[in-house]
Amino acid sequence: MITFYDIPSTIPGQAWSPNTWKARYALNFKGIPYQTAWVEYPDIEATCKKIGALPTSKRADGSPLYTFPVIHDPSTGTSIAESSLIAEYLDKTYPDAPALFPPGTKGLQSAFLAAHRTALGALWQLIMPVTATILNPPSQVYFKATKFGPHLVDLILSGKEKEEQFSKLKEGFDILDELLRKEEGPFVMGENATFTDLAMAGYVLWMKKVWGEDSAEWTEVKGWHMGRWSELLTNLEKYETIL
Amino acid sequence: MITFYDIPSTIPGQAWSPNTWKARYALNFKGIPYQTAWVEYPDIEATCKKIGALPTSKRADGSPLYTFPVIHDPSTGTSIAESSLIAEYLDKTYPDAPALFPPGTKGLQSAFLAAHRTALGALWQLIMPVTATILNPPSQVYFKATKFGPHLVDLILSGKEKEEQFSKLKEGFDILDELLRKEEGPFVMGENATFTDLAMAGYVLWMKKVWGEDSAEWTEVKGWHMGRWSELLTNLEKYETIL
Repeated sequence: MITFYDIPSTIPGQAWSPNTWKARYALNFKGIPYQTAWVEYPDIEATCKKIGALPTSKRADGSPLYTFPVIHDPSTGTSIAESSLIAEYLDKTYPDAPALFPPGTKGLQSAFLAAHRTALGALWQLIMPVTATILNPPSQVYFKATKFGPHLVDLILSGKEKEEQFSKLKEGFDILDELLRKEEGPFVMGENATFTDLAMAGYVLWMKKVWGEDSAEWTEVKGWHMGRWSELLTNLEKYETIL
Repeated sequence: MITFYDIPSTIPGQAWSPNTWKARYALNFKGIPYQTAWVEYPDIEATCKKIGALPTSKRADGSPLYTFPVIHDPSTGTSIAESSLIAEYLDKTYPDAPALFPPGTKGLQSAFLAAHRTALGALWQLIMPVTATILNPPSQVYFKATKFGPHLVDLILSGKEKEEQFSKLKEGFDILDELLRKEEGPFVMGENATFTDLAMAGYVLWMKKVWGEDSAEWTEVKGWHMGRWSELLTNLEKYETIL
């Protein structure tokens, strides 16, 4: 059975990371059984090295940076890091399950995901400091010291600064909403979800879980674009299982 | 028969504009007969108003800006401006011809085209001053005075500045090359061309035609990414007809 590596937290169900949610959604979407291994931030690198998962980028000093999500599939002896690469691996290895990348759409979805990253640039300053507070102590220490540095993690925005950042975030979602309205149906390709939808949902779920369902922040986001973003979660709720 | 509105020039075949090429490619790709009406820049607005084509954006002073490409289709009594909208109209009105937007890909292709615009940001400073020189006198005057202003049109770059801008342009094409390598085959969706490929080709054709086949600039671009960009033109050569 596949082992899926995720980062725990103090929230119900533990899973919070937008990037690991993309891969967890992908596994659930394809209906592939897996078990979760919960690993705190300081142990991610050693875990990846042990199972042979590659680093996904470099630190400022040039040293390799290991990140989750990672899966290890004993049926092929493969370890894969990074959610898009995991999704491509799952499509290739389990072709009978529904496709995350329908034929011919890998480059196009990749372009959409790049647009998505850019569009949500304003989110980090808003949500990273709150995210730090829901981690377990060992991850919290690591996250504050090394992950994004004090400029992102130490200051929970308020007042005018927070309003401005929310207004930028709304502009980002405006761009995504416009792209989504190009086809009929709730998903980017219309009636059926693809990896792009799961990736967007990973970010929305992060907001809902870290800010909390009853927060002013989530209430604000829920109100945008005729409720599109909370509806996205509802449409994908059946893939929210944590195995 | 559809009338296709384009901007003339002094180069062989006249057609040079990347944006009108996108729509001309689209008509040829779908095999729809049309006739070209050649209109100089100063007459674009009056032409659009006469046939009921909408403006596509606003000038800095807030007044509406009318641009080509525009088509007028007498079979439906419709006039459409802007290459993506023209492509969507052609798919809808002529569904038996090959699809520019295969089912479900309008939002995804739109995201790719946005990435394409951003990736080629460095092109304008390099090519606009040269483009001005190939226009007919009435368009040339209008182009220099109003289109992009003296900062883009008056200075043909050379030396270090030109080298730096070319190196930025190369980085933009690196991004596109990486997205294209996600699928097997010459086009973004693999074996079959879509509107995104025609749009990319429109820009490459602009470079080839305005700089000229034997220029140092075109030779440079041809050498990038294993000849991918000149091959793109070769693969779409059968849709370069000027009717």
